[in-house]
Amino acid sequence: MSKVIKNGTIVTADRQWKADVLIEGEHIAEIGENLKGDETIDASDAYVIPGGIDPHTHLEMPFMGTTAAETFESGTFAAVAGGTTMLVDFCLPGEDGSLLNAIDEWDRKSRDQICCDISYHMAITGWSESIFDEMEAVVKERGINTFKHFMAYKGALMVEDDEMFASFKRCAELGALPLVHAENGDIVAELQQKYLAEGITGPEGHAYSRPPEVEGEAANRAIMIADAAGTPLYIVHVSCEQAHEAIRRARQKGMRVYGEPLIQHLTLDESEYFDKDWQYAARRVMSPPFRSKDHQDGLWNGLAAGSLQVVATDHAAFTDEQKRMGVDNFAMIPNGTGGLEERMGMLWTKGVETGRLTPEEFVAVTSTNIAKILNIYPMKGGIAVGGHADVVVWDPTLGRTITTATAKSILDYNVFEGIEVSASPRYTLSRGDVVWAAGQNSQPQPGRGKFVKRSPYASASKALSKWKALNTPRKIERDPMNIPAGV
Amino acid sequence: MSKVIKNGTIVTADRQWKADVLIEGEHIAEIGENLKGDETIDASDAYVIPGGIDPHTHLEMPFMGTTAAETFESGTFAAVAGGTTMLVDFCLPGEDGSLLNAIDEWDRKSRDQICCDISYHMAITGWSESIFDEMEAVVKERGINTFKHFMAYKGALMVEDDEMFASFKRCAELGALPLVHAENGDIVAELQQKYLAEGITGPEGHAYSRPPEVEGEAANRAIMIADAAGTPLYIVHVSCEQAHEAIRRARQKGMRVYGEPLIQHLTLDESEYFDKDWQYAARRVMSPPFRSKDHQDGLWNGLAAGSLQVVATDHAAFTDEQKRMGVDNFAMIPNGTGGLEERMGMLWTKGVETGRLTPEEFVAVTSTNIAKILNIYPMKGGIAVGGHADVVVWDPTLGRTITTATAKSILDYNVFEGIEVSASPRYTLSRGDVVWAAGQNSQPQPGRGKFVKRSPYASASKALSKWKALNTPRKIERDPMNIPAGV
Amino acid sequence: MSKVIKNGTIVTADRQWKADVLIEGEHIAEIGENLKGDETIDASDAYVIPGGIDPHTHLEMPFMGTTAAETFESGTFAAVAGGTTMLVDFCLPGEDGSLLNAIDEWDRKSRDQICCDISYHMAITGWSESIFDEMEAVVKERGINTFKHFMAYKGALMVEDDEMFASFKRCAELGALPLVHAENGDIVAELQQKYLAEGITGPEGHAYSRPPEVEGEAANRAIMIADAAGTPLYIVHVSCEQAHEAIRRARQKGMRVYGEPLIQHLTLDESEYFDKDWQYAARRVMSPPFRSKDHQDGLWNGLAAGSLQVVATDHAAFTDEQKRMGVDNFAMIPNGTGGLEERMGMLWTKGVETGRLTPEEFVAVTSTNIAKILNIYPMKGGIAVGGHADVVVWDPTLGRTITTATAKSILDYNVFEGIEVSASPRYTLSRGDVVWAAGQNSQPQPGRGKFVKRSPYASASKALSKWKALNTPRKIERDPMNIPAGV
Amino acid sequence: MSKVIKNGTIVTADRQWKADVLIEGEHIAEIGENLKGDETIDASDAYVIPGGIDPHTHLEMPFMGTTAAETFESGTFAAVAGGTTMLVDFCLPGEDGSLLNAIDEWDRKSRDQICCDISYHMAITGWSESIFDEMEAVVKERGINTFKHFMAYKGALMVEDDEMFASFKRCAELGALPLVHAENGDIVAELQQKYLAEGITGPEGHAYSRPPEVEGEAANRAIMIADAAGTPLYIVHVSCEQAHEAIRRARQKGMRVYGEPLIQHLTLDESEYFDKDWQYAARRVMSPPFRSKDHQDGLWNGLAAGSLQVVATDHAAFTDEQKRMGVDNFAMIPNGTGGLEERMGMLWTKGVETGRLTPEEFVAVTSTNIAKILNIYPMKGGIAVGGHADVVVWDPTLGRTITTATAKSILDYNVFEGIEVSASPRYTLSRGDVVWAAGQNSQPQPGRGKFVKRSPYASASKALSKWKALNTPRKIERDPMNIPAGV
Repeated sequence: MSKVIKNGTIVTADRQWKADVLIEGEHIAEIGENLKGDETIDASDAYVIPGGIDPHTHLEMPFMGTTAAETFESGTFAAVAGGTTMLVDFCLPGEDGSLLNAIDEWDRKSRDQICCDISYHMAITGWSESIFDEMEAVVKERGINTFKHFMAYKGALMVEDDEMFASFKRCAELGALPLVHAENGDIVAELQQKYLAEGITGPEGHAYSRPPEVEGEAANRAIMIADAAGTPLYIVHVSCEQAHEAIRRARQKGMRVYGEPLIQHLTLDESEYFDKDWQYAARRVMSPPFRSKDHQDGLWNGLAAGSLQVVATDHAAFTDEQKRMGVDNFAMIPNGTGGLEERMGMLWTKGVETGRLTPEEFVAVTSTNIAKILNIYPMKGGIAVGGHADVVVWDPTLGRTITTATAKSILDYNVFEGIEVSASPRYTLSRGDVVWAAGQNSQPQPGRGKFVKRSPYASASKALSKWKALNTPRKIERDPMNIPAGV
Repeated sequence: MSKVIKNGTIVTADRQWKADVLIEGEHIAEIGENLKGDETIDASDAYVIPGGIDPHTHLEMPFMGTTAAETFESGTFAAVAGGTTMLVDFCLPGEDGSLLNAIDEWDRKSRDQICCDISYHMAITGWSESIFDEMEAVVKERGINTFKHFMAYKGALMVEDDEMFASFKRCAELGALPLVHAENGDIVAELQQKYLAEGITGPEGHAYSRPPEVEGEAANRAIMIADAAGTPLYIVHVSCEQAHEAIRRARQKGMRVYGEPLIQHLTLDESEYFDKDWQYAARRVMSPPFRSKDHQDGLWNGLAAGSLQVVATDHAAFTDEQKRMGVDNFAMIPNGTGGLEERMGMLWTKGVETGRLTPEEFVAVTSTNIAKILNIYPMKGGIAVGGHADVVVWDPTLGRTITTATAKSILDYNVFEGIEVSASPRYTLSRGDVVWAAGQNSQPQPGRGKFVKRSPYASASKALSKWKALNTPRKIERDPMNIPAGV
Repeated sequence: MSKVIKNGTIVTADRQWKADVLIEGEHIAEIGENLKGDETIDASDAYVIPGGIDPHTHLEMPFMGTTAAETFESGTFAAVAGGTTMLVDFCLPGEDGSLLNAIDEWDRKSRDQICCDISYHMAITGWSESIFDEMEAVVKERGINTFKHFMAYKGALMVEDDEMFASFKRCAELGALPLVHAENGDIVAELQQKYLAEGITGPEGHAYSRPPEVEGEAANRAIMIADAAGTPLYIVHVSCEQAHEAIRRARQKGMRVYGEPLIQHLTLDESEYFDKDWQYAARRVMSPPFRSKDHQDGLWNGLAAGSLQVVATDHAAFTDEQKRMGVDNFAMIPNGTGGLEERMGMLWTKGVETGRLTPEEFVAVTSTNIAKILNIYPMKGGIAVGGHADVVVWDPTLGRTITTATAKSILDYNVFEGIEVSASPRYTLSRGDVVWAAGQNSQPQPGRGKFVKRSPYASASKALSKWKALNTPRKIERDPMNIPAGV
Repeated sequence: MSKVIKNGTIVTADRQWKADVLIEGEHIAEIGENLKGDETIDASDAYVIPGGIDPHTHLEMPFMGTTAAETFESGTFAAVAGGTTMLVDFCLPGEDGSLLNAIDEWDRKSRDQICCDISYHMAITGWSESIFDEMEAVVKERGINTFKHFMAYKGALMVEDDEMFASFKRCAELGALPLVHAENGDIVAELQQKYLAEGITGPEGHAYSRPPEVEGEAANRAIMIADAAGTPLYIVHVSCEQAHEAIRRARQKGMRVYGEPLIQHLTLDESEYFDKDWQYAARRVMSPPFRSKDHQDGLWNGLAAGSLQVVATDHAAFTDEQKRMGVDNFAMIPNGTGGLEERMGMLWTKGVETGRLTPEEFVAVTSTNIAKILNIYPMKGGIAVGGHADVVVWDPTLGRTITTATAKSILDYNVFEGIEVSASPRYTLSRGDVVWAAGQNSQPQPGRGKFVKRSPYASASKALSKWKALNTPRKIERDPMNIPAGV
């Protein structure tokens, strides 16, 4: 059974053009005019774009004494309903510290639930010889080419500078890419204590204790360590100009650093934490916190300028009840908000409709760039013959008002509640299956999704290694006559 | 007669993959494995890349009282021998000031000579109602969507700020892209007089009278004017950090500004002007002049970071005899150097072989990016089904030493003389014709090249117009009661 | 008759200490403990600071078809009432273009009116051999070591880049300091036409047509020209981050550039132009216009960081009736606001009381720094034995609400109306005379003020000349054998 | 017995003027013309400047398993011979960790030896309740208002981020100023291991393992922590643009951060470590290491621009034999070089004579600025009536060639060996005593120097505290109705 997407305007990161897309099985078989297939999917007056890739989710994540409520099933359903056909979840080692066991656990959780394709980033939350050893298997056997490092969450996930350096060096050897959550965990912990001691127990204390300077500092530090270790670096959830500035500065020195703002930070601001309704404010608690509008402008400009590359969500959804764990202490509010379903529509509305981004840039930052960074392009992230048929028929006139009532997320609220978006997916295809059709509202088969393996040694990684090898410091050869005896 | 390029590794701005390329007539018909054609072109152990596009040449240009020696015939032969399959020449109005007449004149000069495809940028060297009017025909009828403005060459090509603003506004209306040569012509003229008065008459005076600050200032000024006029901007021959910094700063404010370093500025430095041999130094006289190695590092980093997008040549070749017009006065030395044939090989050797650029970035900055900017992608600048078969089989082991003796340029010297490059084109195809085959050394048919028309309203131009319209200042409505009577 | 200022805390740009100040005649005779004089001035619980110097006023200036209403008499009375004991007015050449005649004219206007000391900056509004010649007499005979250049007011005061370069070079030779009003006059004129054509005729159009980028561009350009000419540079009324950034960038390259924000730009913002009351908005029309709060933060930080050095007023006061000349066309509203009387109190209240500035920095930016720049320190701008007794007893508890009713200005409104300041002068002394005593409110004798002559070749000027001489480009000596014959 | 310094030109940070200086006892009694005293010190054709203050020395410091060879006696003799009349040494806690005991130990070492005045910075090398408590006594009883923190020397002196935050907060409370040695100790340790493992055991490995990025990172981190703690910050031995950039960036946000380059980093470069003679290279081993000439330019420009404030030496002198402890391992070479005697002459020659600095700026960065920062101005660091008579008659024609043979340092080599300086002290006075007279070469009485107590709450500290208090985050008051019950 072949399918043809007819009469749409294809938009890739490169260009726009009118053409049909023929799908055979799981792959794109042909792109051209007047194509025919067994089944026709109407894309008239719509764009045909690569399915979105959200490289930053935490589904069913055990965290802060509870577990994120969003399941792999509900999360992947929300994803496809919003035009996202792949997500990359963070796999956290358990108490035994084993990376491989953690992957098994994540597989166990996700396997029968996922409605679209997924992959994992592996978290490095400590350092040991066994972690050093397991990293090789993670890359070569499990197909995971990214390792996440938390510079925050002191006493829990946080790693120290020498641990990061060791892990980054290991990444460089394996051709893998290190990721960092950039906030100075020491200072966050100190500021939490300070504000709590001053009686600031509400969600505003969360924002106060994680100011932009604290994020910028950590970003800057991670960049230096990556440079010393000789590896590219990817900084997740860049929320502020301080971190963005550090990234730009590094890139202008030839360092290969990527930055990922979240749709939340692009569109919501810190005033949310000052809401008089505790629950309203607590729902918005995530790290880094929302920032001021000036920071938002910086992030948007970075996406257009190319100093930031990817828009993600950090989807980590906790219910109202879970949020209430921190009713007396903001530091106990589980960190996280949703966005998986809303990312594409929000970015189109606030980005493309305003002229801040071209349609091509929209595609680049929602799928193509991250697919290249993850070394899975154009299997994912493109509209390419031979690639997976992860395709969205994106209807720029299919507006709607975001509301919990119709959202696919398991959550009982939505941080984008009430915002009108101007565009939505008419159809979402995942490896050739129509997994979402506007108006039908039906859920795809849980378990139909697959895990996507990714190869190491992406092109930027290889180029950097070459440059570092050419420019490594050299020993000065000295005549023994010119070296004195020791003491 | 179809052709198939077999067994190569295709490299685009996006990715690398093993595939064959089937060419039918002038176009790419198919890309895939095991393709067959009437004729086979061997790409084993080689890359298959889009033909280079050099967007900055001055062939047979009347300038400084003489005419550039490189003809459209010799220039386009040199281009294809070096792996470049399209160039964009600057069309200068003649004494009557007419843009359309100038295009006719350029057509007359180029028509029977060109061995590959070309296009023109139209120069705006003054301002009048008739220029305003003709610009529309230039864009809509002649297919030229770029207008060049000289901020230097006072008394000759230079335009004033209000003229630039008027022309830039006109560009915005027409969906065309303004280009600038950014040097403060007033100050250059003053410094020339100053150094000549001090007895500095040799080529070093050329460098002294055009310092980096003078270029950076003009770049900064052009950017402000483009922002005020509401148009993207393309800055040619960015040679220094001062101009690059202005571009970066603008891009971080959301302005859409492009920068084009030249292969000369990336690889040659200012010490050339201090050579004890006058003729050696005079051959290197071009504007802006070569800079110090620090500036070179900045340019390379900009290409990798994306703050600079295109590598060109400003190929404007004057013979030793022509250069001698300035033997007593550096300001009389015709400005210009060659590079059309050497650009691709030099950039690969100094960029990709060192790890400064990935192979994909090499393709991006030699063809794809400029094709997008000029709104002709992927007809040009890509390896895409339906696009022109402007393709190069790029052999990374086909090294050679650059020398005048074997160069195709008409010039009697070469500014890259003696430099070894590690890679060269094995074959160059222009719209399906093999116009260069290494070892055969034969010249393609003059006149076989075509003029390439380009449409206005590229995607970035449309997005910027949308943003500017949304953010235009609004009139404050005042109650007449609150407005006093005049005096 | 000697006077002693008793029991105060002296604050200079350097330090604070408890001491008395003995004044004999026009000068400070002694500083120390337990001093005695014929007359005692009580400084208990107050600071004793150098009288403010406002280096930027336009009293009785003919401009835009009218004449600034503030006279030398009312202006200098307002000055001393606010704690300012010297001002520097801009002397504009008349129709004959003569600099020396203009000084005579300014002397004629000011001589019998001034209540405190004054000096002039000489404006260069064109270029000619006679201006070149007269500049020497201006410096050597008339004691004026500063020359002002307008990059705005096209068709009136504006000079072109080559004129600026010529004048700046002349300044370098004479050891004088060039000043610039930095706005791109070409683009301002174009934007005025654009907004008027769109029907925006109200005061908001004034702000729209002079955006920060237009100021930043001109500042950047002036800096480059000063660098090429080899002279320090002083940029008046720096209102925005764009200009401030250009200044910082220059200073970090070793260029000697000074920046002067105005008290208006530090404390008032662009929303004033959007007021529904035309007259309210028109009163605030000055160039550059007020900016957003972000720009204000930048200026304050620059004062603390030392990247900006002086706070002035650009006092140019036009009455409500004069402002109404532009009721149908914002471009006809005479540009200018007041501030002479309010500068010191506003800066203390918004700067020192908030902790943005130390008391020492307050003194530095209100008098000491400009005195050094003008090469009259510590005759003016300090509390130094032998210096002029221009001293203010500054009472940090003498608050008041600014209002036209009590202001000394001739103006019928006040742009700071209603703002409460926390400190005021208890006494102001000008060359030993008490010219203001809080509560007495009496005006000093018009004509008692004197013109202050200033010597050229300030220390920074000499250092820069030395550096430029050491680093001037050198001729490459070539063997005639290596220079070909000409053509 | 009074003394009068006759016929000189006084240079302060503010200005130059001809005047005599009358000294009575330890203090300056009068400044003026035609002064008379019991003894006359001839300053004809010379400058009269405040004695230099070197705020960064390590005399007799136990470090890296040995003790710095320079004694308080030889060091202070070298100081006065070079025109420096006060130094601030770093007091390091011993094994018991007590700050007060360390001060006692330092007093014991210095008391009978010092030829000029000294003070101490107290090092915080760990954190505990007793350190918290002792800090108060250090400030209030011992008169030390500065605390030093090492971010490098892992396993020895290094402190962690949370320790720094705690100590910085304590400094803010006490009105003391934190200092940092900014290098990331974790990464230095890792890079040392890396290069040693690669067989790079010579002094070049020292430079390789402490690259500029590693210093810049730490500076940036310390600044963030100081900002969070609400205190100004002083960064010692700023050697590179990365650290300087971080300082500039902070200052432009209104943070009060000071930077101290060393005379070594201003005048010597990294090529010294590549010398073929091991001992030559080892003598130059200090942290941070010397940098490239680009970094030098940045530091010089920062001194002129005001983004860097103080020139020091980090004088820590180890003999050739001591250096040989690291003959097989650069990480074992005791870190440190000399400079106490050479600082003033080198800075004058390379700074003032070239026009990079004015004479006033020379005074500012060698004494006045640090005196203000240390809150001892104008007792020290000025030429002021009532201040200490620490005065140098600086002869701009008294040139000499620096050489170990004539140096007063105990060291058997000199890193400035062979450099010609153009100026030297004709006389050095310390609290009124002539402690150095050119040509006489005699040593002053050991033990004549005194310890200088310094008060907390300098003006910048008070202003910052005010600003932080005004801008502290505020609790959001919520109606209990709007706060849910916990879980």
